[in-house]
Amino acid sequence: MRVSVLLASALGCTLRLLQPAESFQHVGPSAIFATRLGSTSADLAETKHWRPTVSSLNDRKAYFQEQKERTSETLQSLGFHHVEFYTGDALMTAKRFELALGVPITCWSSLATGNDVCVTYGLECGIDYNSDTESGHGVRFLITAPLSRAMQKVNNDAPSAPTGVPSNVQMTAPLPLPGYSIEGAHEFYSKHGLAVRAVGVEVQDAKEAYEAALRNGAHGVLPPTDIPTNYEGQFTGECQMAEVKLYGDVVLRFVSFGDEHCEQKARDGIPEPFLPHLAPYPSYKPTRPNYGLKRIDHTVGNVPNLLETQNYIQTFTGYHPFAEFTPEDIGTVDSGLNSVVLASDSEAVLLPLNEPTEGKRKSQIQTYLEQNEGPGLQHIAIKTDDIFETITKMRHAEENFGGFELMVRPSDEYYRDLPSRLGNKLSVNQYERLEELGILADADEEGVLLQIFTKPLGDRPTLFLEIIQRIGCVIEQDADTGRIKERPGCGGFGQGNVSGALQGNRRP
Amino acid sequence: MRVSVLLASALGCTLRLLQPAESFQHVGPSAIFATRLGSTSADLAETKHWRPTVSSLNDRKAYFQEQKERTSETLQSLGFHHVEFYTGDALMTAKRFELALGVPITCWSSLATGNDVCVTYGLECGIDYNSDTESGHGVRFLITAPLSRAMQKVNNDAPSAPTGVPSNVQMTAPLPLPGYSIEGAHEFYSKHGLAVRAVGVEVQDAKEAYEAALRNGAHGVLPPTDIPTNYEGQFTGECQMAEVKLYGDVVLRFVSFGDEHCEQKARDGIPEPFLPHLAPYPSYKPTRPNYGLKRIDHTVGNVPNLLETQNYIQTFTGYHPFAEFTPEDIGTVDSGLNSVVLASDSEAVLLPLNEPTEGKRKSQIQTYLEQNEGPGLQHIAIKTDDIFETITKMRHAEENFGGFELMVRPSDEYYRDLPSRLGNKLSVNQYERLEELGILADADEEGVLLQIFTKPLGDRPTLFLEIIQRIGCVIEQDADTGRIKERPGCGGFGQGNVSGALQGNRRP
Repeated sequence: MRVSVLLASALGCTLRLLQPAESFQHVGPSAIFATRLGSTSADLAETKHWRPTVSSLNDRKAYFQEQKERTSETLQSLGFHHVEFYTGDALMTAKRFELALGVPITCWSSLATGNDVCVTYGLECGIDYNSDTESGHGVRFLITAPLSRAMQKVNNDAPSAPTGVPSNVQMTAPLPLPGYSIEGAHEFYSKHGLAVRAVGVEVQDAKEAYEAALRNGAHGVLPPTDIPTNYEGQFTGECQMAEVKLYGDVVLRFVSFGDEHCEQKARDGIPEPFLPHLAPYPSYKPTRPNYGLKRIDHTVGNVPNLLETQNYIQTFTGYHPFAEFTPEDIGTVDSGLNSVVLASDSEAVLLPLNEPTEGKRKSQIQTYLEQNEGPGLQHIAIKTDDIFETITKMRHAEENFGGFELMVRPSDEYYRDLPSRLGNKLSVNQYERLEELGILADADEEGVLLQIFTKPLGDRPTLFLEIIQRIGCVIEQDADTGRIKERPGCGGFGQGNVSGALQGNRRP
Repeated sequence: MRVSVLLASALGCTLRLLQPAESFQHVGPSAIFATRLGSTSADLAETKHWRPTVSSLNDRKAYFQEQKERTSETLQSLGFHHVEFYTGDALMTAKRFELALGVPITCWSSLATGNDVCVTYGLECGIDYNSDTESGHGVRFLITAPLSRAMQKVNNDAPSAPTGVPSNVQMTAPLPLPGYSIEGAHEFYSKHGLAVRAVGVEVQDAKEAYEAALRNGAHGVLPPTDIPTNYEGQFTGECQMAEVKLYGDVVLRFVSFGDEHCEQKARDGIPEPFLPHLAPYPSYKPTRPNYGLKRIDHTVGNVPNLLETQNYIQTFTGYHPFAEFTPEDIGTVDSGLNSVVLASDSEAVLLPLNEPTEGKRKSQIQTYLEQNEGPGLQHIAIKTDDIFETITKMRHAEENFGGFELMVRPSDEYYRDLPSRLGNKLSVNQYERLEELGILADADEEGVLLQIFTKPLGDRPTLFLEIIQRIGCVIEQDADTGRIKERPGCGGFGQGNVSGALQGNRRP
């Protein structure tokens, strides 16, 4: 944990894990920063050598067992399904995402497929089409931009082609996602710039999740609706969605699939669109480069008032607090933040939240809130099983082809000290490669977190990405396949690094 | 010329060059399609084998000599200087332009340099920093996106940092270009999508050009203004600009430089910013890949009423008509256009204009006007001295890294017929490489045009690029350097291909 303390202390943050069963309902505003785990935040500030107490592996196993029996959440979350970005030009954005992250475009909707409202590219990787896709596995992005408002009005007034001239478009994906507003999308983009519109979570039943959320105070955005299938625009009931407000203009999107769609398949090497309203992307090649990204680990929101937002989300989701950070050691800070992580019962869905704190210099979270014109999604952490391979490829794309820029690497001193902090949790070769690639490391008692941040993806110092690998914390190993299931959040969040990352957000 | 006729006839277009000295003032609406060059458009429609009569090389030389003595234009145009694109995210767009075209980012202005209004990237190539840069040489792009409107208002109300917290930004390029409107830029982008805002032409004196243009009916947009230098935001008078309306929301931007700035230089291999308000881009490397693009050859506008726009532009510029296309052979058309090319006295600035014509299917120009929500710039033709090298590199970027998509290649038949049409103007190896790379060819009596189009650059079927090489038409050869000066427009415009290109605009 010293890495986080080291970096966090420079930012006035210390980190502490909460026992997962610790419930928000029992933790008031004052108690939130002083729990039964041991030290109070005041104690923590006194020593640089403090290491958080975390539950042991056996405790965690017991906890998961307990959670199975006594669920606290109301949504029946299965895992992250996708994240949707709103942008000004979907092609320009999707092509750079594909290059920068090795997440190929596999499906789409556009003028070419009969959709005259918006253009959407679907990107995905990390899915094994030959075996069952477990919920929460895979990285799926939607990148969506609105088309002409004026043309949309013309077409609405005259549903057939306005000039009476026949179209030569093949209608293979005529409709945007339900609830899509072309006016709203233009205004969203003018306000926020490139930003996340929706965090898509797969649930057992989107309708039930929506109704439970609204009973518990959620602000509804889109009532439960079937997603139409492509080609005919029919509603087959195979896939349902609903949306509630998460924070700012970001929605939490519930998606559920009928039995037939519980697995994603590929035909002739071409993946089926991961949402039924999309058409297969004709340029997709099965040999498309892939940098090894496996799943969305967590999505982080920046809000002006953490407690208020935490209360809202925790109440309608029933998610539990998982870990948090508080600002300390103000004497050395450059900027600060408070942070909490909310987790679904299974902890497959992790939703950290940040609020700014005041320091000698403006908090990077405050800068986000200003430049994003309000609360929003700060970053997405994406998990790889081989961060060395992933970052080697991302750096190659960055340096040669204009991929996403990665944060400036830490000092030589940082890497000199690393082995004495993490010990034999990593090999000599691993330490060398961390330094070579400029990757950060962190650890808790059970595992190791390897992490690296991109610079902001667009013009504004707002949205960025984190690439992580988690090592250790094995819960189960499948005797047949050798597949390992590890504890979510293994190795922690290294969240103090987030602000460190943001400090370098002035490009290049 | 058969290539154009071949392709144009499929589109109902035939092509014909006007003698450059032919003046608009003497060509009324009816006369415009029937001139003293020989055939009338009715005649032209009767034969597929018609070849236009063009002035001989000697005639051209005499013409240029005559033009030097008796200028008809009012602007004193020296050549294209830059083109400015407005986009939603300048980083996302500039990185893809850099990759797709091999035009490196060399300078910028952003939050990181102290500009909180917009982000601009300056890209350039084709300039020999070790020798005099002749006006009109070099490819220079500005790619500009607006930042947060709300933050701009906050900052305007409180010119010092609103929170009183000191900024750690180094103010190296604090200001946008004069006349920049953040509100206007947001609205421009919502309306048009990715589009050209300004065609920048270097003139002897921006103030004189502006005043002459206004005397001749131009709509003024920005009165003559000094461009501030970076670092201090001072106005040194070294560079002046002014803007008048060209068509739609596109302006013709006059730029003139003081004696000190008449050449672009590089220091330590780093080019000076090509406009003084920009700061050097820290990530620029002198080894940056370059695909060989040399200069902007022409920029094409789409308008609903060609004659009206031609009259407006020709009157305030004094430019002369150069070549034009008319719709014929309606029986076989898919879509159609009328087109005229306006040229500055030296013909270093070429401004083609298109209008849609009615056909059995909707004109691609009409589609542009609808999706762009009005008139605008359709495409930029960029000249290379080695189209095989350029397109090899662009195709590599397209196929491997998400660069701009090129149009689908013509049929095998097209290439089988090519040698019989162009004869020994190209070598066997050149014919093979044309076919290999899917490049089109065209010729007039003096020279050959090699050309290829990109698909639309963004989501809308509007803006695209053309890459061309012109072979032949030597006017002068410098005995010392061996540098060749060729007649502008050599080999023609192959403009019938434009619509052919647009037919494939449904990606991918």
